[in-house]
Amino acid sequence: MAERIAILGAGAIGLYYGARLALTGQDVHFLLRSEVDTVRARGITLHTKGRTETLFPVSVSRSAREIGPVDLVFVTLKATANDHLAELLPPLLGPQTLVVTLQNGLGNEEVLARWVDRGRILGGLCFIACMRVAPGEVNCLHVGSITLGEYDRPPSDRTRRVAGLLENAGVPCRCVDSLAEARWRKLVWNVPFNGLSVAAGGITTDVICADPYLAGEVRALMEEVRAAAHALGFDVPAAFAQKQFDVTPPMGAYQPSSLVDFKAGRPLEVDAIWGEPLRRAQAAGVSTPRLALLHALLQRLTPA
Amino acid sequence: MAERIAILGAGAIGLYYGARLALTGQDVHFLLRSEVDTVRARGITLHTKGRTETLFPVSVSRSAREIGPVDLVFVTLKATANDHLAELLPPLLGPQTLVVTLQNGLGNEEVLARWVDRGRILGGLCFIACMRVAPGEVNCLHVGSITLGEYDRPPSDRTRRVAGLLENAGVPCRCVDSLAEARWRKLVWNVPFNGLSVAAGGITTDVICADPYLAGEVRALMEEVRAAAHALGFDVPAAFAQKQFDVTPPMGAYQPSSLVDFKAGRPLEVDAIWGEPLRRAQAAGVSTPRLALLHALLQRLTPA
Repeated sequence: MAERIAILGAGAIGLYYGARLALTGQDVHFLLRSEVDTVRARGITLHTKGRTETLFPVSVSRSAREIGPVDLVFVTLKATANDHLAELLPPLLGPQTLVVTLQNGLGNEEVLARWVDRGRILGGLCFIACMRVAPGEVNCLHVGSITLGEYDRPPSDRTRRVAGLLENAGVPCRCVDSLAEARWRKLVWNVPFNGLSVAAGGITTDVICADPYLAGEVRALMEEVRAAAHALGFDVPAAFAQKQFDVTPPMGAYQPSSLVDFKAGRPLEVDAIWGEPLRRAQAAGVSTPRLALLHALLQRLTPA
Repeated sequence: MAERIAILGAGAIGLYYGARLALTGQDVHFLLRSEVDTVRARGITLHTKGRTETLFPVSVSRSAREIGPVDLVFVTLKATANDHLAELLPPLLGPQTLVVTLQNGLGNEEVLARWVDRGRILGGLCFIACMRVAPGEVNCLHVGSITLGEYDRPPSDRTRRVAGLLENAGVPCRCVDSLAEARWRKLVWNVPFNGLSVAAGGITTDVICADPYLAGEVRALMEEVRAAAHALGFDVPAAFAQKQFDVTPPMGAYQPSSLVDFKAGRPLEVDAIWGEPLRRAQAAGVSTPRLALLHALLQRLTPA
């Protein structure tokens, strides 16, 4: 039987995963704002490495009340839009609804816990390279995978059910024992590369890696993130950080999502990627001076 | 008897001090480039708090050989132009010539020592608020003072002779036992405020002080500079840093010189203000992570 799914947030990630789930038989409802008419008229088009698929018709709505309670909500809003959850989320919730945040950084599960029982909150880290090229149209360069976990507990049948839906939709999934550890691991890359790409004046990752001073700062920031994670009880080996560095130069002139946001004049996810990790490091008594400086600069540089 | 003086560098500082020395009877020669014709035709005009003085005629030259050996050279080039010293300085040197660098940051005396005997090198820190408003025209908002010292030795009669010339020209002078310590003290302000004003997107000092995160970073950077200075044997008390912070908010929307340079598309004095202090801190085994990150960002942000 098809799962009733709501997609909250219509950026590249929400459109891509939502459409793939719908194309493989799930009952997917998109909560959109400005793009409702376009998507209703033309559907959602995905370009994946030269292959084009169109989902039509699409169930789209401007109002969460119109959609009503679902089995599963994917939250794909920018973390900077979390203030809207108070209005958008509650109408989608039934007593068994699972909510999966696919957002960046730390603190998003905690925000969801204001409305959802902790046992029904999941989180996913998306390793995907895609961009929204027009309303309802996404270009996916690299499908990658999703790392899934539960909020503050190991994976259960629920996690595996969500993973199964995504796998069936062509998205490889990996369930992890500790979502929090997975999030800290992702920060090992995001804190330095997303941050320096903006703070150093709008440069791509290849430029960062080729600059001996900035490359040194990447490594030092990675060490600060590792130290904070370690103090909080998470295992992020030095070899993992080394690998995160090593995979970057081959990516070429890659624009981290924060740089894409910055260039488009959109607010950066400053709190999720730098602010909350900094507060947790401080609470754990770990000194992270570079993270503190980078956070202070980015909260000033972010478009309002 | 008038001293024969050469002014090397025709920014606001060189024009201001040079013209004041000439107006009080010294034999001053300006080494200029693009502005030679204008200054020769119109002289140098100083606006000092509502009072206007004009020096005319002015001895200006494009070539150091035309000027020849002098008693005293004031180096007021940007530290970023030090490469030109190899051509500009030697023709001005006689066996007794004193050379006073009024440049920012660390490392300028060492550059001069390539051509000048260490015992004839002096340095000065200019506490002045002035700007060049047109070729040969300077607006001085605050005359302030100069702190003078000798390179690697206490002040001598030479220092007092130079101080006397400046005092006589209306510029209060203070001779200090340790020029190096005075330079580290000035860095307590310059490292954070010049750096953050640029790295945080082009903001004035009042905005920095009013931002709780950036104000915290100012204090932390001041502590790093103090720690480095201390390890190198210089005394920079905590109360001194506190005072450097406290005097800043009353300055209002002040643009540090690096911000002025940045907005004008001129190279920043990255090496003198951040690079050389960082190297000396590292050589002394002092950890200055914020200085390292700020330096890495600024060397990327500086106009080429």
